[in-house]
Amino acid sequence: MGSEAEHVLTLDTLNPNVIELQYAVRGPIVIRATEIENEIKAGLKKPFAQVVKANIGDCHATGQKPITYIRQVLALCTYPELLKSNDFPEDAKAQARRILEGCKGQSIGSYTDSCGLMVVREDVANYIGERDGYPADAKDIVLCTGASDGIKSVMTLLLTAKGGIDAAGFMIPIPQYPLYSAAISEFGAYPIPYYLNEKNKWALDVSELERAITEAKPNCKPRAIVVINPGNPTGSVLTKENIKDVIKFAHRHKLFIMADEVYQHNIWAEGAEFVSFKKVLQEMGAPYNKMELASFMSASKGFMGECGYRGGYAEVINLQPEVRAHYYKSISAKLCPPVSGQAVIDCIVNPPKPGGPSYDTYMKEKDDVLAKLKEKAKFVTELFNSIEGISCNEVMGAMYAFPRIYLPEKAVEAAKAAGQTPDSFYCFALLEEMGICTVPGSGFREEPGTFHFRTTILPQMDELKAVLNKFKDFHLNFLAKYK
Amino acid sequence: MGSEAEHVLTLDTLNPNVIELQYAVRGPIVIRATEIENEIKAGLKKPFAQVVKANIGDCHATGQKPITYIRQVLALCTYPELLKSNDFPEDAKAQARRILEGCKGQSIGSYTDSCGLMVVREDVANYIGERDGYPADAKDIVLCTGASDGIKSVMTLLLTAKGGIDAAGFMIPIPQYPLYSAAISEFGAYPIPYYLNEKNKWALDVSELERAITEAKPNCKPRAIVVINPGNPTGSVLTKENIKDVIKFAHRHKLFIMADEVYQHNIWAEGAEFVSFKKVLQEMGAPYNKMELASFMSASKGFMGECGYRGGYAEVINLQPEVRAHYYKSISAKLCPPVSGQAVIDCIVNPPKPGGPSYDTYMKEKDDVLAKLKEKAKFVTELFNSIEGISCNEVMGAMYAFPRIYLPEKAVEAAKAAGQTPDSFYCFALLEEMGICTVPGSGFREEPGTFHFRTTILPQMDELKAVLNKFKDFHLNFLAKYK
Repeated sequence: MGSEAEHVLTLDTLNPNVIELQYAVRGPIVIRATEIENEIKAGLKKPFAQVVKANIGDCHATGQKPITYIRQVLALCTYPELLKSNDFPEDAKAQARRILEGCKGQSIGSYTDSCGLMVVREDVANYIGERDGYPADAKDIVLCTGASDGIKSVMTLLLTAKGGIDAAGFMIPIPQYPLYSAAISEFGAYPIPYYLNEKNKWALDVSELERAITEAKPNCKPRAIVVINPGNPTGSVLTKENIKDVIKFAHRHKLFIMADEVYQHNIWAEGAEFVSFKKVLQEMGAPYNKMELASFMSASKGFMGECGYRGGYAEVINLQPEVRAHYYKSISAKLCPPVSGQAVIDCIVNPPKPGGPSYDTYMKEKDDVLAKLKEKAKFVTELFNSIEGISCNEVMGAMYAFPRIYLPEKAVEAAKAAGQTPDSFYCFALLEEMGICTVPGSGFREEPGTFHFRTTILPQMDELKAVLNKFKDFHLNFLAKYK
Repeated sequence: MGSEAEHVLTLDTLNPNVIELQYAVRGPIVIRATEIENEIKAGLKKPFAQVVKANIGDCHATGQKPITYIRQVLALCTYPELLKSNDFPEDAKAQARRILEGCKGQSIGSYTDSCGLMVVREDVANYIGERDGYPADAKDIVLCTGASDGIKSVMTLLLTAKGGIDAAGFMIPIPQYPLYSAAISEFGAYPIPYYLNEKNKWALDVSELERAITEAKPNCKPRAIVVINPGNPTGSVLTKENIKDVIKFAHRHKLFIMADEVYQHNIWAEGAEFVSFKKVLQEMGAPYNKMELASFMSASKGFMGECGYRGGYAEVINLQPEVRAHYYKSISAKLCPPVSGQAVIDCIVNPPKPGGPSYDTYMKEKDDVLAKLKEKAKFVTELFNSIEGISCNEVMGAMYAFPRIYLPEKAVEAAKAAGQTPDSFYCFALLEEMGICTVPGSGFREEPGTFHFRTTILPQMDELKAVLNKFKDFHLNFLAKYK
């Protein structure tokens, strides 16, 4: 009996759901990337001067500047003394005053309602109403600590508190954003993977949905379908027809729809447009417009990229009133989402108005960020498709490319010998040789026998070009090495 | 088959753990208080002009002013343009620059590591080292979205992912802060209540701990003991001897210690002092200094009261390295705590230094808040004890009084007839008649046959006096009515 035996928590007693949980976006390769950064700091020689973190959609980390107006409103809310300053525009002051009026004691240091400030919820409802052409109700808006928190809160409602064949089943796209698989593990729920059609721009085929749910029904209680649109990691943008098909499918199988729409401002492809699930539900009329739907939005993506403020909201419609009361109650133990994050959301959904002193700068900064991202989406797509052994669907939306890599058999064997998936093996080599940190496709799950990686399109254009040239060298070397 | 039948979520299918979950601090009485506020706004006549919310420790909501220095540092981090302004002191600028240096892209809009910024974790470790006289390791510090988030993350590690007699048991004080019972419900874990000794300043008797765990052992797997010190809702402050007893008990039964120490700056009683569990563990030496302990701290209480920023940290010591890796991984899916909340924590643990331009004002503001709270703690204790049918232990620490109310038999019967607990019945009457919103003792649980309520001591002194005078009238009327 060594001192080890004295621990309450060991690998034998630790919550097995925690052991199972994986979150690839911050997984082993990212941990290794940070180690390498520390090795460089400590003077260790590397074939590169710094690590490029293309693993996570962290806009400001890769050189994007904050939108001035948002930060002005936040500074005014934070330190209201600045309301007296002539250095801040009147529209920013008015918006800050309005937010502070909504805060108890006029301080963003006080708790808000658990659903968030009513003034922000109203602004979100107006934004959605204008976006969709159908009104939204502020009572259906729940602000949250980033979209992740909102997603987990809704998933919590759908759990069964039972295991085995009584566990709640969540249909998730493959490839998917790993928050979903991580939450399913943590909750002891049951994942129902459905494969997106890589050959058809990662479209969502109803026949595949039917296959997936049919196979899963003996093993769990299917409760919800998760759709990510625009797609992460795929970069796809669904058509309205495709969304209709999904809604009909969900209705047929009595599934709660969870629409992850955090990239709704990030549409790049010609002819593509963002259409919300809420809008399509409304257009379809009865019985679809009574279906339960949660749509999630974030302050972290779009053109603002304010990840660190942890702002987000969920619009949750058509809940039974009793269920909604329990939902509100269940989030009350978290007290409230960060109020500065709520203020960021307010600036996004209620931006400066034409004619106001901040309008031109705001629009210029917004358009500039979006134009650059659009340019990079095109550049990345074309570059990947120009390289032997790689194919990549067009980055139609969101902030990522998810190229497919065709790996030689010898590389697959070498990976096996190293105890890694082939794409992990590939991505680790890319990190060690070139200092480029991406995320292996296996972290998002993928069709068996296919290999991918995810990279953000966020580095500034000059850096992105340099990085992708280094990548190309790496890739061709890798192919040659394992030919 | 009405449209009701079409809902995925009904009271029959909703997660039963969510249905069970209760969070009294924002429970039915608070919902009713908000309704009354809306009724007043709508012009309905009430016997009072406004509702006094004494239900929640929300400092700024009740008139406490933010600490200037904290808000200056936050404004500088938010809008770095202000670093050029002469209106901000140099020490605030230096602290803001240091935080921004720690942020990727020098923006608090980028994600931090999931454990938080290393610079803040180091400052927390220094603070703890100075507080206890024993060094702390920055790697043991995990920043979180308010203490609540940190507490739930640690509880998650301790779950068994099983129900029935294999569920994880958490020893919780009665009365307790309802976060614990709410989280236990949500997680499907097993509560092991132990009663604090109201007759002895709410002390923690080891014989009671032994009784509680002995009774619980056939029904669950006891994993952890929660201690709240200074006490919420009790206002107690534990002695070092009492803490030693708890540590020995936890060692004997191999329990993980969860020390909720968010009120560590809020000590009022003469002769009382805050001693951390960590310090006592270290003083006791082997084998106790190898025990697993998590201590939680918040930006929301103390003298700063920055609830809305959702800042907090956990110091988690003596984890096995493999377990710690899983802990870090499990929080990574939340991405990171709000960075502005991290900055608040930094200002609290690394305040202005003597001789610097902000020191005098900072100390004056801090001392002023604490002196006023101390005065109110004394006033409230004395006032409650002067009223017939009420007894109240001294408010030695924290921000609440938890008086015991001796209710006439007729009142107990009337409550029963109304389908309420006697203290809910009492608190609802207090709300409806006087507009004073408190929380019934049953929301914190209490010894059977005893009745209490919790009130904050936060309203400004003039208001507090007026409120308590109205309360006294109400109470004496209530006694007379049900005599």
